[in-house]
Amino acid sequence: MPIPIILDCDPGHDDTFAILLAAGSDRIDLLAVTTVAGNQVVEKSTLNARRVLSLAKVHGVPVAQGHGAPLLGGTGHGEGDRYGGGDVHGDSGLDGWEFDEPTVPQDPRHAVELMAQVLTAAPEPVTIVAVGPQTNVAALLTTAPHLKPAIKEIVCMAGSTTRGNFLPYSEANVLFDPEAAAVVLAAGVPITYVGLNVTHQALVTRDVLARISAVPRLGDVCEALLRFRSGAYDGIWQMPDPPLHDPVAVALLIDPDLVRCRRANVVVEVHGQYTRGATVIDLLGVTERAPNAEVALELDAPRFWDLLVGTLEGLA
Amino acid sequence: MPIPIILDCDPGHDDTFAILLAAGSDRIDLLAVTTVAGNQVVEKSTLNARRVLSLAKVHGVPVAQGHGAPLLGGTGHGEGDRYGGGDVHGDSGLDGWEFDEPTVPQDPRHAVELMAQVLTAAPEPVTIVAVGPQTNVAALLTTAPHLKPAIKEIVCMAGSTTRGNFLPYSEANVLFDPEAAAVVLAAGVPITYVGLNVTHQALVTRDVLARISAVPRLGDVCEALLRFRSGAYDGIWQMPDPPLHDPVAVALLIDPDLVRCRRANVVVEVHGQYTRGATVIDLLGVTERAPNAEVALELDAPRFWDLLVGTLEGLA
Amino acid sequence: MPIPIILDCDPGHDDTFAILLAAGSDRIDLLAVTTVAGNQVVEKSTLNARRVLSLAKVHGVPVAQGHGAPLLGGTGHGEGDRYGGGDVHGDSGLDGWEFDEPTVPQDPRHAVELMAQVLTAAPEPVTIVAVGPQTNVAALLTTAPHLKPAIKEIVCMAGSTTRGNFLPYSEANVLFDPEAAAVVLAAGVPITYVGLNVTHQALVTRDVLARISAVPRLGDVCEALLRFRSGAYDGIWQMPDPPLHDPVAVALLIDPDLVRCRRANVVVEVHGQYTRGATVIDLLGVTERAPNAEVALELDAPRFWDLLVGTLEGLA
Amino acid sequence: MPIPIILDCDPGHDDTFAILLAAGSDRIDLLAVTTVAGNQVVEKSTLNARRVLSLAKVHGVPVAQGHGAPLLGGTGHGEGDRYGGGDVHGDSGLDGWEFDEPTVPQDPRHAVELMAQVLTAAPEPVTIVAVGPQTNVAALLTTAPHLKPAIKEIVCMAGSTTRGNFLPYSEANVLFDPEAAAVVLAAGVPITYVGLNVTHQALVTRDVLARISAVPRLGDVCEALLRFRSGAYDGIWQMPDPPLHDPVAVALLIDPDLVRCRRANVVVEVHGQYTRGATVIDLLGVTERAPNAEVALELDAPRFWDLLVGTLEGLA
Repeated sequence: MPIPIILDCDPGHDDTFAILLAAGSDRIDLLAVTTVAGNQVVEKSTLNARRVLSLAKVHGVPVAQGHGAPLLGGTGHGEGDRYGGGDVHGDSGLDGWEFDEPTVPQDPRHAVELMAQVLTAAPEPVTIVAVGPQTNVAALLTTAPHLKPAIKEIVCMAGSTTRGNFLPYSEANVLFDPEAAAVVLAAGVPITYVGLNVTHQALVTRDVLARISAVPRLGDVCEALLRFRSGAYDGIWQMPDPPLHDPVAVALLIDPDLVRCRRANVVVEVHGQYTRGATVIDLLGVTERAPNAEVALELDAPRFWDLLVGTLEGLA
Repeated sequence: MPIPIILDCDPGHDDTFAILLAAGSDRIDLLAVTTVAGNQVVEKSTLNARRVLSLAKVHGVPVAQGHGAPLLGGTGHGEGDRYGGGDVHGDSGLDGWEFDEPTVPQDPRHAVELMAQVLTAAPEPVTIVAVGPQTNVAALLTTAPHLKPAIKEIVCMAGSTTRGNFLPYSEANVLFDPEAAAVVLAAGVPITYVGLNVTHQALVTRDVLARISAVPRLGDVCEALLRFRSGAYDGIWQMPDPPLHDPVAVALLIDPDLVRCRRANVVVEVHGQYTRGATVIDLLGVTERAPNAEVALELDAPRFWDLLVGTLEGLA
Repeated sequence: MPIPIILDCDPGHDDTFAILLAAGSDRIDLLAVTTVAGNQVVEKSTLNARRVLSLAKVHGVPVAQGHGAPLLGGTGHGEGDRYGGGDVHGDSGLDGWEFDEPTVPQDPRHAVELMAQVLTAAPEPVTIVAVGPQTNVAALLTTAPHLKPAIKEIVCMAGSTTRGNFLPYSEANVLFDPEAAAVVLAAGVPITYVGLNVTHQALVTRDVLARISAVPRLGDVCEALLRFRSGAYDGIWQMPDPPLHDPVAVALLIDPDLVRCRRANVVVEVHGQYTRGATVIDLLGVTERAPNAEVALELDAPRFWDLLVGTLEGLA
Repeated sequence: MPIPIILDCDPGHDDTFAILLAAGSDRIDLLAVTTVAGNQVVEKSTLNARRVLSLAKVHGVPVAQGHGAPLLGGTGHGEGDRYGGGDVHGDSGLDGWEFDEPTVPQDPRHAVELMAQVLTAAPEPVTIVAVGPQTNVAALLTTAPHLKPAIKEIVCMAGSTTRGNFLPYSEANVLFDPEAAAVVLAAGVPITYVGLNVTHQALVTRDVLARISAVPRLGDVCEALLRFRSGAYDGIWQMPDPPLHDPVAVALLIDPDLVRCRRANVVVEVHGQYTRGATVIDLLGVTERAPNAEVALELDAPRFWDLLVGTLEGLA
């Protein structure tokens, strides 16, 4: 039985691989793709989601646009941010390739409305995979708390057990909308946290790039996108082998053995002067807060790349 | 031309008089009543709104239920709160009178959905009068920012230029959901703030109580509700002549000369240890923040009571 | 028996009258004057304290200079401050009069060292009157906690039960060094808080100015200083009859009946975004925090001015 | 030429080795040992410092007691702390060995007074090595800012570039007194930060323990202390090979090649809800804050242990 999921994203280069993995895996039943502001403004996220699904020739999955700003307004990426998502993903949000006009249309519904209708209609609880800022998911949870039982789990690409990226202790998705992340963590729904600590084990090395580039039909696009990403990561974080965060959150649904997790308490700092958006993850139980999430710690990287490359080949 | 309004409320004794004033005034076109958690849980707010409209024999105004918790979850009324809304308004949220089963039904839509549809359908911009926690209004603004031009103004019973009530510097509506109040203030929509500083000029003195009690048909109910309020205010705040906050926010739409305002910057403290929910109102321009609201400062109390009593008599 | 006091101040126009009142009253035994940065840099505070004592022909009271910056460093007067002390008190900290070279010398000891030695030497507990930022007092309490029993009481001109002056909810002395104020309040020493709510009852009206101006010998200086203050207050706060904060804190020691107080809990907000330096005073017990201070609420203004004018005449 | 230092500490097992290293190295001129509350109350810190110096037969170095509480009062170790210093270091602060009555006396001066006098008297700038909470150092900097030029450098065992110990992102010395750490970082004095990220490279493995245990005369004491530490670290942090933080801060003065550093901006979070005491270290320049410290990143552990064991042997 494939796992029914809603994929909430802000494509984005690594979101692209999350979409392709979700669309191409027979272990996943992709019910909807919803978009949010993050790596770029939401209109570009939506266009890019349609582009990627069109590229993958995936029709019939609705794509709905969601929040264009954090839950409390503003532009996200607050204190000390020299690098907006635009620096990492380019002006289009998906720089490196010239896409054709997408054939997949935009659903007229708001992302949160689509989520609610999908959850209401589904015969079994649905997993939400949130790989952008969690604004849509938080809005869903606060506006329609009666739908919580229809959510099997929320898998978030978010945060870090160690250092962040956009701030020393803050990861971009959480920093863009810390209050949304706090709402999600406090909702009482099962949560899995896939943070930088584990996604930085999914590095696009020269070898990985060669394998992906060799995929028929999709290889050229993927290579171009990953080369752009390599340049951006090298410039900002001195990481020429860039991490591919978002597909890890999809991969662990497909193959739970890919990732070792630990139950722990996760809270988000929303009040700090220098630590806004930090995910404070109590791996050793030094606070007295009860565990509220599965926290991904270790990735079987070779197996992850096998899964990703194999799925891309299946889409070719 | 009557002013089209949506009244968002959490009745509540003083909300009751806001509803009656809005329903009874020919200067107001009451398009919808929406409810929110605040003085009591939202289910009681909704029931009470239906009770009050039934009492007033107002049919045809939809009553929709909204958020049952603050925007970021939790139960509202955080730090140092000894007095939940229940202590002020009783277990029913409207203690002091035994109401009949209401004849006015609950609209099946969510409050935010109803608001959005009313705004979309209205031929002219609509005024939102928010006399409870601003959760619904904030959710509307973040989920449907394209509807901002359809909002003429948001009049909030909220905050204070001086001291608060539930905390030394925090008023109950803002304290219950400070983030929602912050969202509303930052939305770029015209705002009027009616705070405790001015509603504490609307005191139900012995003389006022006598006039209201003498209103045909509605006098008995109103008297019973106000006597309950007097007892609660005396017990908690040593104010046996209790203030009637919420109708002031409706009254200033009916008769702008009732209230003297000043343009000023208003921000909400969401990060403080002891000041969460404080409305920081810069009346003299000592900060460099630009004015973003009309702040009510002075009430013509005799004229206010004349308006209220006259409107109640019109409903009788 | 006169009350032994240490006067910690940052003169300043109103500090001047506190010094004169303390020096001139036979109910007060002025053991030391210590200075702190606040209305101006500490070097100017010290010079001005010496000038005022010289003017009053008070010799034998040591004047020692203390902290030149808040406890945590920086320049004080943080967020949103358009009006440093310099705008209120002028470039000299005591603009409006050309003083002669002071005859009273500066004691070579640091203010905190002098305080500690005075407390150690005193045969009975000493009252500290702190009418500037409380940096010196806080440093004394943390460095020499064993001297707490030698402190009878700390009377602070600080904070407000209602609005502030330098920020909507923050008074200048507390805003300049909120952490110091927090240390003092938490020290477990008896505290009296004289805030803006009561010092704004000590307004230098035309009539008051006339009486002070008529004092032999000192009248001209005092008039000139008060006229400068009137101009500054009118410009910034639209108060041409300016309040004279600091002498109220000395006056209530001389004549306790001058001021009505209430025991209440006082805490200082150090973490807020817009409320840093706010004194949160729980007059009605709505928080569950135990009372920790006597809070001045009401001033017998005529009696206060009689006391001040009479004492000035005694110094003439 | 040996480097003149003041060692400010809260012994403490690892402080013990810092003291022994400083006392035993001919590259260090130990001018004073000052104590602070941290691992235990300050009276125990002081007694333990005297014990360790007595054990090492180091006489003539003054030992003065300093602050017994954080700069802003309270007991330190705030939010979420299940493990006070007492759990790590035992009731005596130095559990595991029964010490004789120390022969080294306590200097009657306050630690801050002694520091100031040492700095004033020294013919060249002095290095302060602070391996406990930085309360004394902060008090020195705020009370005697004119002595900053007499400080060559402040080397702090403090913070972390990655995770903390007492809280997920907070290290014990900084968490105990975050404001003091903030004062030190903002003082404009050269700073070196030796955090958990590097001290966790100084692990007392079985092999290290064997070498230390074999040191003549001192081996038994050291072994007993380290065995206690091993048990405590295993119980709390699942680290049976415990790190020896404090001597690393002394070692890098003796042999700068032991530690690789990077200039970076370091700030301390004092306002966070879950991150109080976090040291936010911007290794990659993602904030726009200018570098203000040398941050230790990598330890040559074999060389470190050679230095420590060799110095202990020299003291035997």
